[in-house]
Amino acid sequence: MQLEDSSNSLQATLRQRRQRLACIIKTPVILWSGRAPDRNFPANRYPFRASSHFLYFAGFPLDNAAIRLENGKLELFLDDASPESALWHGEMPKRNEIAAKMGADAAYPLAELASRTANAATVAVQDIKTYQQQCQLLARTVAPANAPEGIDRELAKAIVSLRLSHDTEALAEIRQAAAVSVEAHLAGIKATARAKTEAEVRGAMEEVIIAHNMQCAYSSIVTVHGEVLHNERYYHPLQSGDLLLADVGAETPMGWAADITRTFPVSGKFSSTQRDIYDLVLAAHDTCIEKMRPGVEYRDIHLLAASVIAEGLVELGILRGNPTDLVEMDAHALFFPHGIGHLLGLDVHDMEDLGDLAGYEAGRTRSDRFGLGYLRLDRPLRAGMVVTIEPGFYQVPAILNSPEFRAKYQDVVNWQRLERFRDVRGIRIEDDVLVTESGTEVLTARLPNAAEEIEALF
Amino acid sequence: MQLEDSSNSLQATLRQRRQRLACIIKTPVILWSGRAPDRNFPANRYPFRASSHFLYFAGFPLDNAAIRLENGKLELFLDDASPESALWHGEMPKRNEIAAKMGADAAYPLAELASRTANAATVAVQDIKTYQQQCQLLARTVAPANAPEGIDRELAKAIVSLRLSHDTEALAEIRQAAAVSVEAHLAGIKATARAKTEAEVRGAMEEVIIAHNMQCAYSSIVTVHGEVLHNERYYHPLQSGDLLLADVGAETPMGWAADITRTFPVSGKFSSTQRDIYDLVLAAHDTCIEKMRPGVEYRDIHLLAASVIAEGLVELGILRGNPTDLVEMDAHALFFPHGIGHLLGLDVHDMEDLGDLAGYEAGRTRSDRFGLGYLRLDRPLRAGMVVTIEPGFYQVPAILNSPEFRAKYQDVVNWQRLERFRDVRGIRIEDDVLVTESGTEVLTARLPNAAEEIEALF
Ligand SMILES: [Mn+2]
Ligand SMILES: [Mn+2]
Repeated sequence: MQLEDSSNSLQATLRQRRQRLACIIKTPVILWSGRAPDRNFPANRYPFRASSHFLYFAGFPLDNAAIRLENGKLELFLDDASPESALWHGEMPKRNEIAAKMGADAAYPLAELASRTANAATVAVQDIKTYQQQCQLLARTVAPANAPEGIDRELAKAIVSLRLSHDTEALAEIRQAAAVSVEAHLAGIKATARAKTEAEVRGAMEEVIIAHNMQCAYSSIVTVHGEVLHNERYYHPLQSGDLLLADVGAETPMGWAADITRTFPVSGKFSSTQRDIYDLVLAAHDTCIEKMRPGVEYRDIHLLAASVIAEGLVELGILRGNPTDLVEMDAHALFFPHGIGHLLGLDVHDMEDLGDLAGYEAGRTRSDRFGLGYLRLDRPLRAGMVVTIEPGFYQVPAILNSPEFRAKYQDVVNWQRLERFRDVRGIRIEDDVLVTESGTEVLTARLPNAAEEIEALF
Repeated sequence: MQLEDSSNSLQATLRQRRQRLACIIKTPVILWSGRAPDRNFPANRYPFRASSHFLYFAGFPLDNAAIRLENGKLELFLDDASPESALWHGEMPKRNEIAAKMGADAAYPLAELASRTANAATVAVQDIKTYQQQCQLLARTVAPANAPEGIDRELAKAIVSLRLSHDTEALAEIRQAAAVSVEAHLAGIKATARAKTEAEVRGAMEEVIIAHNMQCAYSSIVTVHGEVLHNERYYHPLQSGDLLLADVGAETPMGWAADITRTFPVSGKFSSTQRDIYDLVLAAHDTCIEKMRPGVEYRDIHLLAASVIAEGLVELGILRGNPTDLVEMDAHALFFPHGIGHLLGLDVHDMEDLGDLAGYEAGRTRSDRFGLGYLRLDRPLRAGMVVTIEPGFYQVPAILNSPEFRAKYQDVVNWQRLERFRDVRGIRIEDDVLVTESGTEVLTARLPNAAEEIEALF
């Protein structure tokens, strides 16, 4: 851990965050950072990732630590490294130094936590070893984070209300993640000219992230099969008629994420059919961002994207009928089957560990409509929110070859015309958008997304 | 998963491995592959890594699968992906296709496993969710892998006896991992000339591994503070007098590892003190490899390295006395505090999940001597073993500033002379060595290790 990175402003921000929490919740709160899970043997672990809720209030990615928050006060529970650990891992900052950096009011060894757990609310961590410790120390079965109960549910709601809008410190981190992600994408586009496989482009992109001492915020998607939405295979060769879809984002050392997708032609030049669809997806993207401002329902932004896509597909002769009717019958979702985006923050799908508690306004639940059920965010926008806008067009075999869908959409799809677009397997354009008082700021705007601009990068 | 990679020879090898197992153990054996642990939320997981014992007998990194072995027969238990999964993750090979590729005798959905668990031995996996399933299905508390009991212990010993010597298929995989790791190190050395931080060199090295569609076999060490043995920090700037220690290794898609360390001057030129120590470490490295052949005790190879280092340090005026006496009193370990190496295979410390069952010959246990206690392998070498040889020299503050060590080694260290070597914080030279019938083959020999050769790469 690099303590030098911390600043007085971080300390002030952390204090402000816990004071805001104290205004909402009166019970003590204990948050655990977790530990790195073992990979193939205990000395060979996955890279440590502290729990996001811990990071939000503690600021630093401390391994196997806990913080206790009450009335705006912070107590840190952390063991100093053993002398033997200094041999293998070097001298680590001491508990008291770290506590000072985060503006803690007190600091204790972990063992002290046992006597300070009465009536405390918590959020279950993902790491099971630490989760077992949470249950043991709190002397109750803590429900999983996506179904919190009692005071834990109150805490989760309080944290959501804070984390939904980002403070200056958070935005500074997200901007850093965005800047490095933009560099990674530029390197990926540049590498495509000489790359022979998806893996080589991925290597060029992740190199940039690693070189900036960041991690990937999620498993990169770098694929000529963009129609596989969460494709994590990288072995396909690049062929000149292919589009390459790259969904790659960096995470800062303090845990803040960016999330960018670009789709570009392997040859450096879109075919006319690829260009037609690309321009349509970009139109949906731009139209959505234009309409965003505080108070606008994100769900309406999603439906706006659906309309633009339906209208465009009618113009291209792929869909038949009235765009409004087509959206109502979810015909757009044959080609755009996911939501327009999601919250972004410490998690790439921010607070998705809490299920839909963060993404869905109180009283709202997921739609069972094919064209809405995958929407991850259904709230009115507010200033300080960062969301992704990521419309797409995909020819997903599991959808387009499904007898059920074929029957239902028999007449509204011109299947023969669609054939002519077979070199468009998947396109997505994704940017990270801050909602401001007056509208939006695209945090990833430095990365071109217009077709000509992308071609010009080759 | 890329099934096309598989071959008839893999199938034959897998059959041979399970037949060899059947000769040693008569009870049925069930091995689980495990699942990827959640990172910050359930949809954002760490990269999946199948359990090594599963990989050894199943060949393919199948997520959430099990195999049952009995009398040389293989049954595969795996669920076909759901139709919804095809939307997000694409079409996956079906259970029966996979079973055919691995030469399975039968294949069932996972739920069928419950009725086939009687009297089965197993190895506990690292992933806790799957471990809980193991206990539940076997209706007993499975002891952790590093302390197996009863039939599980018999199984662990049987697996060790197989995995200690590598077959042709395994060696082909390790050679691939070694070849890519060599490329990564060459790229790292090349990148150092223009890099400003450790992270940038790490990026250049890991890019090569990712571009070959491999993963890192372990968390890379790329540091100007080589004296921190397991340094996982990458933010330090590179300064012209620094040595950069890079311990980076690739893992093939099927799970086989390489493990290479090189130490090189940031400026491209060793100082005379750095060169003196570097040449000494290399002499220890070369002397060890020269003496290796079947039947030689690995512990003696470790002690040989200790002797060469002690002798060299006497010649350099850093230690005083008779080298043999110095080794006996562990004076070498002040500067070379770890073991000369370890087994290498599916795990970078092969089978270390089983504690010392693999590393230590039956009846042997760890020494409590400072200069021997960290030795990870204490067995006679045999043909087909792959081990690392990785002598080093480090000025570890936790050791050299320890009042206890200072007192004990007061007279044998020339502390004033040592001062002149302060620009040598840590040097390690590590190669992967196959023991052959007649001697050794260095699998990583294509990567230069002589000081002049390394300087010539700049
Ligand atoms: Mn996204
Ligand atoms: Mn090693």
